[in-house]
Amino acid sequence: MKNSFGTSVILTLFGESHGPGIGCVLDGLAPGMEVDEGEISRLLSLRRPFGSFSTARVESDPFVIESGVRAGKTTGAPLMIRIPNENARSGDYDAFLTTPRPGHADYTAAVKYGGFQDVRGGGHFSGRLTAALVAAGGILLPALKRKGIAVATHIRELYGIADRPFEDYETDALSLVNKQFAVLDDEKADAMQTAILAAKAEGDSVGGILETAILGMPAGVGEPWFDTVEGELAKALFSIPAVKGVSFGAGFDLARMRGSEANDPFRMENGAVKVAGVRQGGVNGGITNGGVILVQTAVKPTPTISKEQESVNLKTGETVTLTGAGRHDPCIVHRARVVADAMIALVLADLLARRFGTDWMRSE
Amino acid sequence: MKNSFGTSVILTLFGESHGPGIGCVLDGLAPGMEVDEGEISRLLSLRRPFGSFSTARVESDPFVIESGVRAGKTTGAPLMIRIPNENARSGDYDAFLTTPRPGHADYTAAVKYGGFQDVRGGGHFSGRLTAALVAAGGILLPALKRKGIAVATHIRELYGIADRPFEDYETDALSLVNKQFAVLDDEKADAMQTAILAAKAEGDSVGGILETAILGMPAGVGEPWFDTVEGELAKALFSIPAVKGVSFGAGFDLARMRGSEANDPFRMENGAVKVAGVRQGGVNGGITNGGVILVQTAVKPTPTISKEQESVNLKTGETVTLTGAGRHDPCIVHRARVVADAMIALVLADLLARRFGTDWMRSE
Amino acid sequence: MKNSFGTSVILTLFGESHGPGIGCVLDGLAPGMEVDEGEISRLLSLRRPFGSFSTARVESDPFVIESGVRAGKTTGAPLMIRIPNENARSGDYDAFLTTPRPGHADYTAAVKYGGFQDVRGGGHFSGRLTAALVAAGGILLPALKRKGIAVATHIRELYGIADRPFEDYETDALSLVNKQFAVLDDEKADAMQTAILAAKAEGDSVGGILETAILGMPAGVGEPWFDTVEGELAKALFSIPAVKGVSFGAGFDLARMRGSEANDPFRMENGAVKVAGVRQGGVNGGITNGGVILVQTAVKPTPTISKEQESVNLKTGETVTLTGAGRHDPCIVHRARVVADAMIALVLADLLARRFGTDWMRSE
Amino acid sequence: MKNSFGTSVILTLFGESHGPGIGCVLDGLAPGMEVDEGEISRLLSLRRPFGSFSTARVESDPFVIESGVRAGKTTGAPLMIRIPNENARSGDYDAFLTTPRPGHADYTAAVKYGGFQDVRGGGHFSGRLTAALVAAGGILLPALKRKGIAVATHIRELYGIADRPFEDYETDALSLVNKQFAVLDDEKADAMQTAILAAKAEGDSVGGILETAILGMPAGVGEPWFDTVEGELAKALFSIPAVKGVSFGAGFDLARMRGSEANDPFRMENGAVKVAGVRQGGVNGGITNGGVILVQTAVKPTPTISKEQESVNLKTGETVTLTGAGRHDPCIVHRARVVADAMIALVLADLLARRFGTDWMRSE
Repeated sequence: MKNSFGTSVILTLFGESHGPGIGCVLDGLAPGMEVDEGEISRLLSLRRPFGSFSTARVESDPFVIESGVRAGKTTGAPLMIRIPNENARSGDYDAFLTTPRPGHADYTAAVKYGGFQDVRGGGHFSGRLTAALVAAGGILLPALKRKGIAVATHIRELYGIADRPFEDYETDALSLVNKQFAVLDDEKADAMQTAILAAKAEGDSVGGILETAILGMPAGVGEPWFDTVEGELAKALFSIPAVKGVSFGAGFDLARMRGSEANDPFRMENGAVKVAGVRQGGVNGGITNGGVILVQTAVKPTPTISKEQESVNLKTGETVTLTGAGRHDPCIVHRARVVADAMIALVLADLLARRFGTDWMRSE
Repeated sequence: MKNSFGTSVILTLFGESHGPGIGCVLDGLAPGMEVDEGEISRLLSLRRPFGSFSTARVESDPFVIESGVRAGKTTGAPLMIRIPNENARSGDYDAFLTTPRPGHADYTAAVKYGGFQDVRGGGHFSGRLTAALVAAGGILLPALKRKGIAVATHIRELYGIADRPFEDYETDALSLVNKQFAVLDDEKADAMQTAILAAKAEGDSVGGILETAILGMPAGVGEPWFDTVEGELAKALFSIPAVKGVSFGAGFDLARMRGSEANDPFRMENGAVKVAGVRQGGVNGGITNGGVILVQTAVKPTPTISKEQESVNLKTGETVTLTGAGRHDPCIVHRARVVADAMIALVLADLLARRFGTDWMRSE
Repeated sequence: MKNSFGTSVILTLFGESHGPGIGCVLDGLAPGMEVDEGEISRLLSLRRPFGSFSTARVESDPFVIESGVRAGKTTGAPLMIRIPNENARSGDYDAFLTTPRPGHADYTAAVKYGGFQDVRGGGHFSGRLTAALVAAGGILLPALKRKGIAVATHIRELYGIADRPFEDYETDALSLVNKQFAVLDDEKADAMQTAILAAKAEGDSVGGILETAILGMPAGVGEPWFDTVEGELAKALFSIPAVKGVSFGAGFDLARMRGSEANDPFRMENGAVKVAGVRQGGVNGGITNGGVILVQTAVKPTPTISKEQESVNLKTGETVTLTGAGRHDPCIVHRARVVADAMIALVLADLLARRFGTDWMRSE
Repeated sequence: MKNSFGTSVILTLFGESHGPGIGCVLDGLAPGMEVDEGEISRLLSLRRPFGSFSTARVESDPFVIESGVRAGKTTGAPLMIRIPNENARSGDYDAFLTTPRPGHADYTAAVKYGGFQDVRGGGHFSGRLTAALVAAGGILLPALKRKGIAVATHIRELYGIADRPFEDYETDALSLVNKQFAVLDDEKADAMQTAILAAKAEGDSVGGILETAILGMPAGVGEPWFDTVEGELAKALFSIPAVKGVSFGAGFDLARMRGSEANDPFRMENGAVKVAGVRQGGVNGGITNGGVILVQTAVKPTPTISKEQESVNLKTGETVTLTGAGRHDPCIVHRARVVADAMIALVLADLLARRFGTDWMRSE
């Protein structure tokens, strides 16, 4: 059991979906950082269910900063954010202790925790805990922004329907900031939402691909082995429930390219070295090259569905035909977007702190 | 700078391509493990250049176990393996200090290490260091095998040419053990090698995708957040130079599926719960489900090519047309395969040690 | 800033003395451990001010377990305990931002946190946070007891007044369990308390030495280098505010002995190897030898006193004569005892988990 | 098994006394640090047996820097130093596998490693491995010196014979640099050496206390909880074989003081805040206060003696009267001094790197 992430900036996550509350401790922050509770609320609202195709559970996510902040600024001591749970209907979930849902953690949790795990609402595995990650993002993303670093994620693809790719990174990044359903081409949003509703109508779910552009990261951050920028970001992104793939730059398409197509040339621009292209994803030898970092994150279809599925009764060994229960989302791709932003912010803040210390986090 | 990987089983890597030697320290092993130097040699030979399409540099990789083994068994103290360097032609590399190769770590190393880095042969960034990883794999893969766990990687795709998928995992895994060019369908090997030679003839290079099946991992290993099985494996695989994508199960194709297609049902088989399918990659909620773990690793085309490329002179700021120099591989996908096996073995051994301690490593 | 301790069992501490609350996250516990809230309360009461010689601040320490426990048993997810703050009189402390108290962290905090630290009541440095450590001890000490391991601390010395040494470890350990003022010879308690009251009458404070006997630890736990049993225990004990020395067995007296006096011989007892003596402190080569582990912890006099002291005004650079303010203890040695027990329990649980996994923690 | 120390500057230790060699990997160094092999040799010579009262084993300690240095400067990649073993007489040690020496790690190693440990010369537990720590000190101590930080250790006490205390720290520190037997009052050296020879004549050994003054550490380094300056230094010092106590400032004497005596007042000196006194050991609230850091380290008498001792035969269970064998030191206090310097340098470098990054390590 190890619920902490980071080396210099460290997040420790706690809570269960239907327990008293969830939250996290964020350690390693600079003292004197401005903390904007409005920005935390805004990010939490981007994670909230949207339109008619998300879970009916209402999550208003009122949070409390219990430590580490005084008079609106960080003290340098660990910052603890707590989000009390409310509106939980625990009765829906009891069956999953004996009859695990395919694609879900019911079975693996049972093996690992021997039946003592809290299964209500997914317990410690619940996507609910990502609210605490997003709250931490509400501290870190503004700090990165003060240093000129932007993290912008769009829904690159949803059940086969593609958004347009990034064109002008600066403009595109700005356009995504306040979108609840983050696509670059808003016309694609309609098609995607139609696909979600169609799946919902059949008691089914859909997956998709998120793509994040990170702008403004200085060159020279990361390590050649093990703590590579790609490895750290991937580990963080695989922490988000339902993520099954992470790639950089041209990603898996690099397998079909030649080196002469895949390499991003160097150029001089205004007296500075610039990397022309994002096929390498902004990282060479595990270390940032100063260009745009481009990351793709594959999100599987929500495992909880209403359609009939085959499972077993762990006690009797009998085959069981399972029908989904509990309120759930037919798609979490659009909600996972701000979670991805938050996890990426955690990695970037940690990598920068390891390289430059923490002074950059402070408001100027 | 952090050149260690693992929590309970920890590998620390050292060395530079053209320095006195490279190697690693492997800590956290059980005492009393049999160490088979022949198996280490065999694995190192699988990493060695093959046929006419690999670098001309001869690497015989004689290794020395400096500590942690007595009378053919581990003592429980740190095991240090050292591989002296030989046959290095350092003169070829000097230009890269001022004129970085696109796609390579020359520029990012210069920014990070301020010119003090050893650039000869790629220095600490060199693929040469993966020999030390493979040597460590020569300790860990047999230990996993003793516990009934197999790690089998094939070249799933090379410059667009696909190998056949895994069919019978047990048989297919066995068939790969001794192959220098690891494909399941040997006829595809010819087409792939032709593609490599064609690229070589043009001074170019190609990439590909490795796919690994992990058989025999018990259910219940891994963590729900951060130290997920996917996250740990991805971080390890992104440490291998040239890797740009990692996915599990149906990977990025999950983005085009519905939940009813993507979920792997549970079944009873001989009185035990079995996961039917590998679309989830053998992991649910970050924890192994007892099924086959399936991992795809995207390897970019080797960045060092002879074709003309655009770069800059870091001292003068002038644009430079670069022509590749130094001996190099037109493709490293097939050589990376045993490195992937070794890194995966490190992750599995570490995850198992964190869950069950180290007794399982010992020979029975 | 790093507020976590442990490798396999990990405690993360948060909170400030006069903020909303303090608490900790305890990770790496076994699922299925019985959690006895009464025992947590009992331990917290042992830390509470005692008699007429402790601070007048009333601390009833009502705590809330926010996560990781369901139906009285651990779930295996992180266990978060929170203790809300109450009864804080912040006005007393403002002057210490500019005029640091000698022996206190006012000055070093100002340098480290640049004025953003919460100075009220000592902020994150406050002894108040040790309540969270004790609460964690309320989870771990019963787990150790279930495995037959007892942790028993007495006040070995207070302002030069010595308690009698341990005689029969089992009996003596039992006799200490419920004592608010933990001495083996109760007559010495009177003399010690008189010394405290005398210091208090003069606006001064006193220090002392705690001595802990750890019974029942199996042999073979710990590491030869760095993660030695002595090193881990010392690091944990130095975390307790006011601790300035840690020694084992005969401690500093070993410097005046010969090897023939200092070595503890081995004997056979009921068919098992026993170590006869505690001069080596129960540890050889960094690893437990199966005998009683004996630790001494030197606690300096409480730095906050009412007597005149020399300090400086950090803003004006003027010399200042300081007179103590705020409610404070003339002695914390007796209160630190249960904190020492808790920190020792954390180290033992962590060392055992690293060696044997976590199954031993569970109730039988 | 965990043979690494440090968070930002990390040392990994390997080797066994009578194996091919010992050494360490030092990671997290700045690129561009000057490496003076002469200084490494000089420090190793201070650790070498001295006069007629040390082991007869000749250790010339020729070392090889295998990686991380090019043209006399660090590259920023891990620095590996290897010291081949020579002149080992393994035959002397075989009996200790069944008959453990009191006070030694023979028994605890047997329990932990189950008989697979290399017992020859103490194996991985051997004091021989401290040569690798000293070699690392040869990299770090000059780096600290370049930043104006001096580490100076004297033999404060040996078998009850006291050296004079530090008077003028700067002058005293300088006087110790080249002493093989590091006392401040050379007349005390004679008495101490006489005590050692007397013990040797009787086949016995003696212990002592080292005291280290650390000059020039800036204020504000360290953490309030867990990673306190005292805790980190203590953990490092307890790694040195035979250390059984660590204290700071007035140490255990603080237990007999009042706060008014124990607190070190603040004063202004040349416009800067100065701490007047070392009773608090230069650390308040776990963080350096800018004053001299004073550390005492208790070293037990060498456990290996020739005098008769009681032990058991682990196989037969019979009582055994043991007579020391193998070459050994009647006292290691004077040799441990440079090891203490090296371990302290590692802690200081790590704490500084965590606070300020690594630029300070570089030569100006």
